[in-house]
Amino acid sequence: MNGSTSRATVDLLGVLAYGELSGFDRLAADARTAPTLSGRRQLSVMAAAEMGHFRLLEEHLERFGVTVEEAMTPFVAPLDAYHASTRPRTWLESLVKAYVGDGLAADFYREVAGWVDDPTGELVEKVLADTGHSAFAEREVRSACAQNRQVRDRLALWGRRLLGEAVTQAQHIVAERDELADFIVRGSGDIAGIAALIKRLQSNHGKRMAALGLN
Amino acid sequence: MNGSTSRATVDLLGVLAYGELSGFDRLAADARTAPTLSGRRQLSVMAAAEMGHFRLLEEHLERFGVTVEEAMTPFVAPLDAYHASTRPRTWLESLVKAYVGDGLAADFYREVAGWVDDPTGELVEKVLADTGHSAFAEREVRSACAQNRQVRDRLALWGRRLLGEAVTQAQHIVAERDELADFIVRGSGDIAGIAALIKRLQSNHGKRMAALGLN
Repeated sequence: MNGSTSRATVDLLGVLAYGELSGFDRLAADARTAPTLSGRRQLSVMAAAEMGHFRLLEEHLERFGVTVEEAMTPFVAPLDAYHASTRPRTWLESLVKAYVGDGLAADFYREVAGWVDDPTGELVEKVLADTGHSAFAEREVRSACAQNRQVRDRLALWGRRLLGEAVTQAQHIVAERDELADFIVRGSGDIAGIAALIKRLQSNHGKRMAALGLN
Repeated sequence: MNGSTSRATVDLLGVLAYGELSGFDRLAADARTAPTLSGRRQLSVMAAAEMGHFRLLEEHLERFGVTVEEAMTPFVAPLDAYHASTRPRTWLESLVKAYVGDGLAADFYREVAGWVDDPTGELVEKVLADTGHSAFAEREVRSACAQNRQVRDRLALWGRRLLGEAVTQAQHIVAERDELADFIVRGSGDIAGIAALIKRLQSNHGKRMAALGLN
């Protein structure tokens, strides 16, 4: 692994780590707005799972001789901007955000798993295997949408906006990190490969919206 | 195990579970006020550990045929009252509360481990073995106190108040749950045994305050 690849890998682990830490923070805050103890339990469990992933990424960064704080620092502002621009106003918006965010993160992990060195790839697979808190959100959101068409329409717009904001912030990040940009272009193959990657992310997002009854 | 013991055990698991869930919630909120990414990481890791304990308690309650939500419900109001009356105003108060709360909980787990049926006792030991995030709080608080006597005096009062509020809320809980009260009296031996138990908790609290440089 040359110096530039190694810097890109550290960037990648850093952005994933801050994604987990900030995701933890937002899920924990949203859990507080749950209408039932059972909903609060569910979102709190999801939040704690983010910290489990965070710990794995942190341990892995140590092998590169980098602290997780150093690796995360460049990504604090753009990820905070994502969360500030997508602050849920209702419990159902919280659930959709948690579900969509988890899914997008899993898709992204899956894409990059093949581009990195073997131990990093194994780590990414491990993080992926540990998700699967989605049944609760699907049940709650579907049931709320079945009862109220206006709720469904608003949540459908919300889900669309979440994807848009995520793509916007991802573009900001890549625009400011040359090694990371090169790494993603190389990983995807070329510019056409990146277009295909974005299309896959959009398509999976659409499937998730359908699973929530929001298509 | 007779019906009354079994109800008391469910109560005990319920109060511990809501202690973990509400502790998670407060630590996650306090993590947001950290002055450094490293402090935020530390409190977030502690918060996630609470959910790990919560999951163990939840699984164990299932053996009694009780959902964790049912078991927790009677304890939501008194534990929320504890947190509302001990809302940290500074980052150092958050650290002291996390440290003192973790310690008190561990002491209490240790006391009850011997009073319950074997599988429950093993669970309690497992939860206890999984703590140990204290070095960070000790280092931060000691260093802040060494630099400023006023900070130290205020945190010393804060630590004393935390213990007082915890004891007050514990008394409310026990006063309203007859089986739990009987169980604790039987576990401690008698009323003199309870006095000795409270003295042990106070003594350990004093040692923790000393470890923080707050005596």
